[in-house]
Amino acid sequence: MKNIGIIGAGRIGRVHAQSIANYVSTAKVVAIADPMLNDDTIAWAKSLGIAAVTKDYKDILNDTNIDIVLICSPTDTHSAISLEAIAAGKHVFCEKPIDHDISRINAVLDALKANPKLKYMVGFNRRFDHNFRAIRNAVEAGKIGKVELVKITSRDPEPPSAEYAARSGGIFLDMAIHDFDMVRYLSGDEVVEVYTQPAVLVDPAIGQAGDFDSAVISMKLASGALAVIDNSRRCAYGYDQRAEVFGSAGAAASANDGASTVQISNADGVMGEKPLYFFLERYMQAFATELTEFIAAVVNDTPVPVDAQAGLEAVRIGIAATVSAKEGRPVKVSEIA
Amino acid sequence: MKNIGIIGAGRIGRVHAQSIANYVSTAKVVAIADPMLNDDTIAWAKSLGIAAVTKDYKDILNDTNIDIVLICSPTDTHSAISLEAIAAGKHVFCEKPIDHDISRINAVLDALKANPKLKYMVGFNRRFDHNFRAIRNAVEAGKIGKVELVKITSRDPEPPSAEYAARSGGIFLDMAIHDFDMVRYLSGDEVVEVYTQPAVLVDPAIGQAGDFDSAVISMKLASGALAVIDNSRRCAYGYDQRAEVFGSAGAAASANDGASTVQISNADGVMGEKPLYFFLERYMQAFATELTEFIAAVVNDTPVPVDAQAGLEAVRIGIAATVSAKEGRPVKVSEIA
Amino acid sequence: MKNIGIIGAGRIGRVHAQSIANYVSTAKVVAIADPMLNDDTIAWAKSLGIAAVTKDYKDILNDTNIDIVLICSPTDTHSAISLEAIAAGKHVFCEKPIDHDISRINAVLDALKANPKLKYMVGFNRRFDHNFRAIRNAVEAGKIGKVELVKITSRDPEPPSAEYAARSGGIFLDMAIHDFDMVRYLSGDEVVEVYTQPAVLVDPAIGQAGDFDSAVISMKLASGALAVIDNSRRCAYGYDQRAEVFGSAGAAASANDGASTVQISNADGVMGEKPLYFFLERYMQAFATELTEFIAAVVNDTPVPVDAQAGLEAVRIGIAATVSAKEGRPVKVSEIA
Amino acid sequence: MKNIGIIGAGRIGRVHAQSIANYVSTAKVVAIADPMLNDDTIAWAKSLGIAAVTKDYKDILNDTNIDIVLICSPTDTHSAISLEAIAAGKHVFCEKPIDHDISRINAVLDALKANPKLKYMVGFNRRFDHNFRAIRNAVEAGKIGKVELVKITSRDPEPPSAEYAARSGGIFLDMAIHDFDMVRYLSGDEVVEVYTQPAVLVDPAIGQAGDFDSAVISMKLASGALAVIDNSRRCAYGYDQRAEVFGSAGAAASANDGASTVQISNADGVMGEKPLYFFLERYMQAFATELTEFIAAVVNDTPVPVDAQAGLEAVRIGIAATVSAKEGRPVKVSEIA
Repeated sequence: MKNIGIIGAGRIGRVHAQSIANYVSTAKVVAIADPMLNDDTIAWAKSLGIAAVTKDYKDILNDTNIDIVLICSPTDTHSAISLEAIAAGKHVFCEKPIDHDISRINAVLDALKANPKLKYMVGFNRRFDHNFRAIRNAVEAGKIGKVELVKITSRDPEPPSAEYAARSGGIFLDMAIHDFDMVRYLSGDEVVEVYTQPAVLVDPAIGQAGDFDSAVISMKLASGALAVIDNSRRCAYGYDQRAEVFGSAGAAASANDGASTVQISNADGVMGEKPLYFFLERYMQAFATELTEFIAAVVNDTPVPVDAQAGLEAVRIGIAATVSAKEGRPVKVSEIA
Repeated sequence: MKNIGIIGAGRIGRVHAQSIANYVSTAKVVAIADPMLNDDTIAWAKSLGIAAVTKDYKDILNDTNIDIVLICSPTDTHSAISLEAIAAGKHVFCEKPIDHDISRINAVLDALKANPKLKYMVGFNRRFDHNFRAIRNAVEAGKIGKVELVKITSRDPEPPSAEYAARSGGIFLDMAIHDFDMVRYLSGDEVVEVYTQPAVLVDPAIGQAGDFDSAVISMKLASGALAVIDNSRRCAYGYDQRAEVFGSAGAAASANDGASTVQISNADGVMGEKPLYFFLERYMQAFATELTEFIAAVVNDTPVPVDAQAGLEAVRIGIAATVSAKEGRPVKVSEIA
Repeated sequence: MKNIGIIGAGRIGRVHAQSIANYVSTAKVVAIADPMLNDDTIAWAKSLGIAAVTKDYKDILNDTNIDIVLICSPTDTHSAISLEAIAAGKHVFCEKPIDHDISRINAVLDALKANPKLKYMVGFNRRFDHNFRAIRNAVEAGKIGKVELVKITSRDPEPPSAEYAARSGGIFLDMAIHDFDMVRYLSGDEVVEVYTQPAVLVDPAIGQAGDFDSAVISMKLASGALAVIDNSRRCAYGYDQRAEVFGSAGAAASANDGASTVQISNADGVMGEKPLYFFLERYMQAFATELTEFIAAVVNDTPVPVDAQAGLEAVRIGIAATVSAKEGRPVKVSEIA
Repeated sequence: MKNIGIIGAGRIGRVHAQSIANYVSTAKVVAIADPMLNDDTIAWAKSLGIAAVTKDYKDILNDTNIDIVLICSPTDTHSAISLEAIAAGKHVFCEKPIDHDISRINAVLDALKANPKLKYMVGFNRRFDHNFRAIRNAVEAGKIGKVELVKITSRDPEPPSAEYAARSGGIFLDMAIHDFDMVRYLSGDEVVEVYTQPAVLVDPAIGQAGDFDSAVISMKLASGALAVIDNSRRCAYGYDQRAEVFGSAGAAASANDGASTVQISNADGVMGEKPLYFFLERYMQAFATELTEFIAAVVNDTPVPVDAQAGLEAVRIGIAATVSAKEGRPVKVSEIA
């Protein structure tokens, strides 16, 4: 039985704690740390049987009974806590992104090289989604031949505030980063060049904050294949999350998940369900699978499904996309070091 | 080049004339007869290049230049005109049903036996629909194994008047007769027993006229397989025409045709098109294929796709269904002679 | 916190125990009884933190700390244990059916009338399925107008053994009983007459055992509406579970759930997923919702979603269907007392 | 009754002649010209009742009985014959593109300005497709709010020969030109900037001939909205022709048309039809509507649905895309004069 400490008791930290309670029998959450600790958090932790609750995440790092740390704190703390956790000999699950700064991510990679027995996984939850996995399985099984094009549609139901956008690192590092990882995952290939066609179509305040809310991003992959992502921060019908891989022998494409398969036919037409609202609804099962597979990798000493290198590559593509948006030119990922 | 005379210049007669003009190069319509002949009909005939227009259908039967007669007159004239046309040595295409009286249909079959060179086809247009043909092709190709169940949904967009219902022969001979033929067509099997669960749910006046407007009809086929039809005279979303054949190795099922494949997603859901409105919209291409194949059978002296026997069997099942509805018991088709 | 004892540690007993552990915070399983108790069961119970394990279900009934009993034992013990549990003052969740004998079900109903504070729920899990609930919600919201027809397709992936069929009470009480309940649930109406068109198409041994493996069952409801069920014990593409309700203003219809929404297009066509394999896959979330709502009804002292009367009605319809199959005639449910 | 002369008796010339025969009652084809005239062509013309057949298209231009000319000859003759036909006072339907040279298209526009009573239409047949029209109708009706993104997938079933590619003007002027027109049609907006990510993934010989066979093309529109097209010259499952318009209030998206709606479920999955094979299959009805609407515009003296300006704009975007592909940079359409 492995002992887990969770750093950050926000929404995603709680999702992971619940997933472990429900689906993982080989590990349990024994401690949770959050500087904003309040009675509600304490009651929630108690209801899940989490014994230790603290404001100071160092209590978790210092606890020699704890084997695994989940880093669910704000993005700007990920790389620093990662380094501390590795130094403390913990296996780490870190929410995406590791950092927006390549040198800091490299510092984490260096620390991991020096501690080869430690597992380190990045939280690209969409890799564990049933639909995207089914596409990846079809690609790997050769059902569509050689990959020629990866297409991803990724639209959030509602835009963030302009304040959030300003602090977020921008749409490419905050939102599209999942899609960049998905291009790598679905194709099994590396992105070599990025061109971004950005726009501010949803909220002018996001533009005034120096960010964009809409974009089409086209990419060239190492094999010569192409990829394209379309992003919007606002989608009237909910969370639109689709992918298609087109190859020499066919294509594999996913549709959205709805709350039911029911269609209502009347004089107006045939009405089906909207996509599930947002990431907690759409990816709830994916979050559970993510944690289950991470813990299994620790317990069995096998490779993690999403390693730190994947975390680095997605950020490099995100920075290349950001540069492309600002400079209006295609940018090679090799420019981003 | 075969010469065609059409008896009846109503809606379906015109559809057939247009189909021949558009798609059939081996025959042409040279005469049309309708007792209600008016200026509009004459102008229409002229626009299609139909030389002869008459009120008396006997002019067509007596015209030795005419090879083929299409009987598109009212139902109660079908069998009598069929007999006259056969006697005159014409090939015949007869709208369904041949008659509601088994003995009169048998008279037509007897006449055909005596004139084996004449082609006689019954207008079960749905056999020429792309969707139902694709199901039949899958069944014949063995893709679903041995047939175990045929399911048909057949709903009209709007009910007829109670007056029409009273004269129509009843829902089973007027409407479900197409579905009975479809059971035979899709299964390649014969119906041996029928049980009807009828209802008046749409218009009480139809019930007062002695007819029904809704029904579930279950059947046993000669092979032991089952079949079930659900009918309604009123469907809020249009003309619902679907079929499914279930077998030992799988199932083949069709959906309705819409005016486009477009789906509109908004805050309310995902909205697609209604089914095409009624038989002229849904089966327009089927009507053209029907005539094309009939003329080809005449020209090439090959069997017609829907023979008089098929016309007889559908009526026998329809009468069995009517008896079942009235007597509240399963009825063997062999009872109907 | 309510304490639960589970009688029967088979597949469904384990599913319920897991659902409670994962989703229910107001109750916990404290004891489990199974006469076939073995080391595997003991280990499983321990892994879920179930303290007491026994071979004798009376230990559970005698334990005054236990508030709620889940009856997951073989069908022929359901009514007897129900009576004992009610006598012991326990709330009861009983797997379907309560019994195949109407008088024994009535005995349970009588015991409940004498103990009005006790909750008693029957395990018609499909009422908690997201698809069927969405249909029911559409019907209740008036989106399809007045109900005119309920259609249910229910096909198992693989037939049971002939031995099982012989002991099962027959396809109508063993399998179609879920569908009878679904007709009542979706329509909000009562079945008044049943006609069964049964067949043995899958396994002759099932026929030799006196049972059927295929059927079309048509029904008349109290409002005058119609219903039809088609059943098969063997479906090559998996567990086919669909429903449609047709009404005066439209229709609501569900499709099957698949493992993903992915479609693979190649030279052969466009291939999507099969339905989820069987009831554990399709209804896993429904089982969890079922237990959650049952416990909530106990905790909050509100009506249970599926009461003993619903258990009785489904059995009455099942017996009427059985009589109809044997006697080849429509059978009124009022004949079954 | 208008008289029509067709220049070019190839595949598309014949399609138009047939469409007019079947669907247009206000005009008839009276002459056809083709330098490759052979017995087969003569027989075909005769079967359609086309009286005059010639090798010299000038015979048509010189025939004062002819009101309308359809230019269905090779692309490099379009602009020259257009000028001659306008000079001869004919209304013109010209297959796309008018020319690959902007100055020659401008010469046609100038000639039309000098002859304002003549109708001139360009053959962008996809504007008459039922699916794309349904999207456009939804956009115009405001059902998706303000347009933010147009997405088009356009894949041919089989690549052309490298020889054809070398002569074709390149993939952007030969194939994507339809998609550029579609972006303008669906959005009701103008393209201002183009970035092309091209690739040779299908046939290296096409690359050696200086062309590409695959591309992702992203665009900025005048309103600030975005557009993206993905093209491939080879699609294993047939002719993939889909579009989606995403806006502030929702999205409208089309799927492909198949030969039927039938789905076959078996142990492997649920298999539906491939898209219709190629443009003659997919757009047959669109071709008929195209000619019908063109003739109606001539007869009623109303604006044509696709004017010469639309022909010019699509070519300008095509040239911009070609420049972008060669120079690896975004290109403003205003650069192309």
